[in-house]
Amino acid sequence: MIILVLNCGSSSVKYKLFDMSKQEVMAQGGVEKLGLPGSFLKFTLPSGEKVVLEKELPEHNVAIQFILSTLTDNKYGCLKSLNEIDAVGHRVVHGGEKFSSSVRITNEVIGKVVECIDLAPLHNPPNLKGIRAMDAIIPGIPQVAVFDTAFHQTMPDYAYMYGLPYSLYKKYGIRRYGFHGTSHRFVSQRACDILGVPYEKQRIITAHIGNGGSITAIKDGKSIDTTMGLTPVEGLLMGTRCGDVDAGALSFIMDKEGLNAAGLSDLINKQSGVMGLSSISSDMREIEAAIEDGDKKAILTMNVYNYRIKKYIGAYAAALGGLDLLIFTGGVGENQWSTRTAVCREMEFMGIKLDEAKNDHMRGKEMVISTPDSKVTVMVVPTDEELTIAKDTLEILSKE
Amino acid sequence: MIILVLNCGSSSVKYKLFDMSKQEVMAQGGVEKLGLPGSFLKFTLPSGEKVVLEKELPEHNVAIQFILSTLTDNKYGCLKSLNEIDAVGHRVVHGGEKFSSSVRITNEVIGKVVECIDLAPLHNPPNLKGIRAMDAIIPGIPQVAVFDTAFHQTMPDYAYMYGLPYSLYKKYGIRRYGFHGTSHRFVSQRACDILGVPYEKQRIITAHIGNGGSITAIKDGKSIDTTMGLTPVEGLLMGTRCGDVDAGALSFIMDKEGLNAAGLSDLINKQSGVMGLSSISSDMREIEAAIEDGDKKAILTMNVYNYRIKKYIGAYAAALGGLDLLIFTGGVGENQWSTRTAVCREMEFMGIKLDEAKNDHMRGKEMVISTPDSKVTVMVVPTDEELTIAKDTLEILSKE
Repeated sequence: MIILVLNCGSSSVKYKLFDMSKQEVMAQGGVEKLGLPGSFLKFTLPSGEKVVLEKELPEHNVAIQFILSTLTDNKYGCLKSLNEIDAVGHRVVHGGEKFSSSVRITNEVIGKVVECIDLAPLHNPPNLKGIRAMDAIIPGIPQVAVFDTAFHQTMPDYAYMYGLPYSLYKKYGIRRYGFHGTSHRFVSQRACDILGVPYEKQRIITAHIGNGGSITAIKDGKSIDTTMGLTPVEGLLMGTRCGDVDAGALSFIMDKEGLNAAGLSDLINKQSGVMGLSSISSDMREIEAAIEDGDKKAILTMNVYNYRIKKYIGAYAAALGGLDLLIFTGGVGENQWSTRTAVCREMEFMGIKLDEAKNDHMRGKEMVISTPDSKVTVMVVPTDEELTIAKDTLEILSKE
Repeated sequence: MIILVLNCGSSSVKYKLFDMSKQEVMAQGGVEKLGLPGSFLKFTLPSGEKVVLEKELPEHNVAIQFILSTLTDNKYGCLKSLNEIDAVGHRVVHGGEKFSSSVRITNEVIGKVVECIDLAPLHNPPNLKGIRAMDAIIPGIPQVAVFDTAFHQTMPDYAYMYGLPYSLYKKYGIRRYGFHGTSHRFVSQRACDILGVPYEKQRIITAHIGNGGSITAIKDGKSIDTTMGLTPVEGLLMGTRCGDVDAGALSFIMDKEGLNAAGLSDLINKQSGVMGLSSISSDMREIEAAIEDGDKKAILTMNVYNYRIKKYIGAYAAALGGLDLLIFTGGVGENQWSTRTAVCREMEFMGIKLDEAKNDHMRGKEMVISTPDSKVTVMVVPTDEELTIAKDTLEILSKE
């Protein structure tokens, strides 16, 4: 079974082609600057060599057609014919309350994804473009939608409801949905596989931290709380998103600065977070570099970044009634070992004991980083959302 | 030493008169509907009898004059002359970054309180009116200001800074300040006094929960974090305030409902919280009654209310590196035992073991409610902000 995984953004299309019989990646790459001047396709050959092909790619259909043509290309390709592709798995960002698991895409499913556009106006429309483009190019090819929000649909109401008028929930669906569900699900299951413990009987916290970031509490295999909310703004300090903030501070700032709703949205999404606080960069690697130079705002930013993660681990341990397994993933979670050290410091009261020798300088590998006598097993598990999408696609089609 | 404590709001003046040699309350009461039709003074006689005197009270000066006249009244009074009052202690809401402890009021202090009006436009002006009225009525009487924010000025920067542009901190002082500081300080010190443990060597969480509510983490006698922020909107679910909410949800709602900054402020301050979510009442006693009748939104509201407290206790235990002492206070914290039960359930992993027999139905008394073998001592300590203000006043004047 050969499965193509697509992640379509408004100006990008990322892809990975899997041979599921071997669980191997056959090809991967992506289009960038789609619809913009200078659009190009970049992909990695099996040798590791990277190829960049510049081409005018005005819209998703053309971009996906171009990707597919390279897959069967004499020079770069790995397929003889597009007929070898058995199915396509799509990342779809927002499934609202309509989807609690991955689904085979039908017209009815497309209709429901359209209904969720309101909740993710920047993401669901390009996701839909990818789905429609594939159906136009290879008519009738089986397609599966894997939602960022689906894994979190098991949250209890007291975790997902805000302290806002109930009428706003009924009218617009204002509630916590959470994101990164595919990643939280993958790393938590993968960790249990590695450890040989039953997934359905663990209290797990997954910290998916990177430019965007969220933490999830998983009890007996089900998400019971997560830091992102209706939108990906809530929770941790992120690249340019503010995370948790006093709502009263926002109306105060709007009043002082003369901002409207769009101005507020721009402030909290694009001007805040690591970038806004540090005035240096949204990239934690540049913050680390500035700390080396003794920059005070970089130190502050790193401390805020780490402290928020630590507080959520405490909060979710309380929600779970104790913790068995703590997992770090995402760009920062996998690589920035100093953050893992800071987060796990003085957490022995809840059973966390980091093995600093194992943790220090450890980047991007599956590894247990707690001591043998730590009650909580602390792990790094690199995430693989694309493989999860491919697996979901395979599983759904196998059942049909 | 006889000390008058004043808490001046925009349409109310509350007072308590203390004989500090005996630490006894000599008189207490308050003016309500100040500046409005139907204004009146209500006070409690030593017998427990309540007296209501209706009178047109257009502004703070007149209201305070009226209060003072009843203190020396033949029928209701406890003083022969106003000269018996040695000093006045005032509750002042916002001291910004200018005040980290209580202070003797001077012209310089008044100037700084004026500078903080921007941060508390509804509270600091009436506080100042009370200070000026007292000085006009009894010229030169020693006065002390006790700030709601002062106790929290020991927070580290990584706890008080938001993930917003640093320039907004420099320009407007946008940061976490916290409130209820006088109460958090009082109950934490009182608990240590009762237990005979050194205040400077404890890890304490104080849950001041009522119509307004905040939780504070206190390490070695110093506040290191608190749930309220720049404004009292952040943190717990409150009577009509939303507490923690996704900033992205706010810009979403503003866009949909056509709200400006004032509309947002009204939504998060007056239409949300327990009232907004339950659609029943802002009063937890009415929520409890509706739960008895099986009302689903009341059950949801109670669950959200309790869950937020539980999560913050976990978060702050992580911030403190473990917990020695957990204290409940405030109207709900002192009386609503079911909330204490819900919050402490399944918290043994962090050393909390509630003695349900002691906790059940226990209201408004100083009491240890954890089991003898609980690592964390859990207590109820009724708050007394007025006594704390009187003590601060006495202490400051004694040093002069």
